[in-house]
Amino acid sequence: MHNEHDHIVKSYDDEQSRLSHEIQRMGAMSVAQLEAALEVIERRDDNAAERIIANDEAIDALEHEVSQDVMKLALRGPMATDLRIILAALRIASDIERVGDYAANLAKRSVALNTAPPMPQIRGLRALGQLAAQQMRDVLAAYQSLDADAAQRVRERDAELDLQYTALFRELLTYMMEDPRNITPCTHLLFMAKNLERIGDHATNIAENLWFRVHGDQRPLPPREKRDDSSVISRT
Amino acid sequence: MHNEHDHIVKSYDDEQSRLSHEIQRMGAMSVAQLEAALEVIERRDDNAAERIIANDEAIDALEHEVSQDVMKLALRGPMATDLRIILAALRIASDIERVGDYAANLAKRSVALNTAPPMPQIRGLRALGQLAAQQMRDVLAAYQSLDADAAQRVRERDAELDLQYTALFRELLTYMMEDPRNITPCTHLLFMAKNLERIGDHATNIAENLWFRVHGDQRPLPPREKRDDSSVISRT
Repeated sequence: MHNEHDHIVKSYDDEQSRLSHEIQRMGAMSVAQLEAALEVIERRDDNAAERIIANDEAIDALEHEVSQDVMKLALRGPMATDLRIILAALRIASDIERVGDYAANLAKRSVALNTAPPMPQIRGLRALGQLAAQQMRDVLAAYQSLDADAAQRVRERDAELDLQYTALFRELLTYMMEDPRNITPCTHLLFMAKNLERIGDHATNIAENLWFRVHGDQRPLPPREKRDDSSVISRT
Repeated sequence: MHNEHDHIVKSYDDEQSRLSHEIQRMGAMSVAQLEAALEVIERRDDNAAERIIANDEAIDALEHEVSQDVMKLALRGPMATDLRIILAALRIASDIERVGDYAANLAKRSVALNTAPPMPQIRGLRALGQLAAQQMRDVLAAYQSLDADAAQRVRERDAELDLQYTALFRELLTYMMEDPRNITPCTHLLFMAKNLERIGDHATNIAENLWFRVHGDQRPLPPREKRDDSSVISRT
């Protein structure tokens, strides 16, 4: 009897570590997709862009697996602390999946940019992209080591990304005003910048879910100011 | 013993219907938010916009409740068919929550538009908004009556919304090219149009999850072409 109980517990732990492993794999894939998308924007490689777009399905499939595994774990009747872990896993997987979507969208828009002449405006996008990728790498590392304080630092740094996004948004508007030929390509760049800003939001969500996983409702996160004010720019 | 079992089963059903009720409430709230946001864009009422932005927290709180309830239901060890119901509930709640986010975002951008002169360009946005709201109302009605065929029709109609979005996207680009003073307000309209197109995607996700809830993996949905091609417009 004692042996059997041990066996059940062990297998439950196995499934938990499998879940954790799947999430790490999803995370690594979405960051790789993002980095490939940023590279494609620089190099204007349509074939590489198509590969990124096709790869997104693998991330989606993995999220599907994660949610099935989470529900199976839940069905085995874990204790209250585990409820927190599996809820966090479910949410983190969903955020990672969205990052993958945005990476694919960046690749798609880079194909659209391809016919336009090389633009100096891409510089700002590159910096924003590097910051977004760093945020994702940092929050996934924090998840790996269950480091809530590192997650909290990622969350704090999102304000920087928001500021940089707003600055780029304003800069792109001025290019559009200078020359109507810039309007179509810069519109794509605006949406690409928005995608990167949203990736930052998902890194923040992951950080918050990691905090919740580690501390529960006992230590709520401090309130945070959202500094993306591009949606309130009314005149430039 | 028989009585006690009955009691447990009844209470489980109660919790299921509570979950269903919560989702309907969330859905009604998000549609109301969307309709209020569309109204605010017409009337340019900043106070109403602020209320919409503040209301979004209630939808977020409700989603939090839904995911807690879903996990509690799962912890009670339902059978395999129920796993599908609770997974669908979790995903549908998350899609509804996102629709609420987009409604709040529309309200935020309408505040930014407020200082700009009344624009004829708003007409196209209104039509797109009405279509998006109709898609949400229809899919929530389908969820209420568990009507997978109605859900499938909502999913089919998303292509129409995508076409309308792409047409509006192109139209807005021409306004921007005609007069640089249109660039800033039309950029907001572009993002608002994108929000409405995304709301349509979430209505489609809800329809797909409803189909999965009703039919399981036995009757997969037919493949569907995505017709939003605004991200591949390279020259206008």
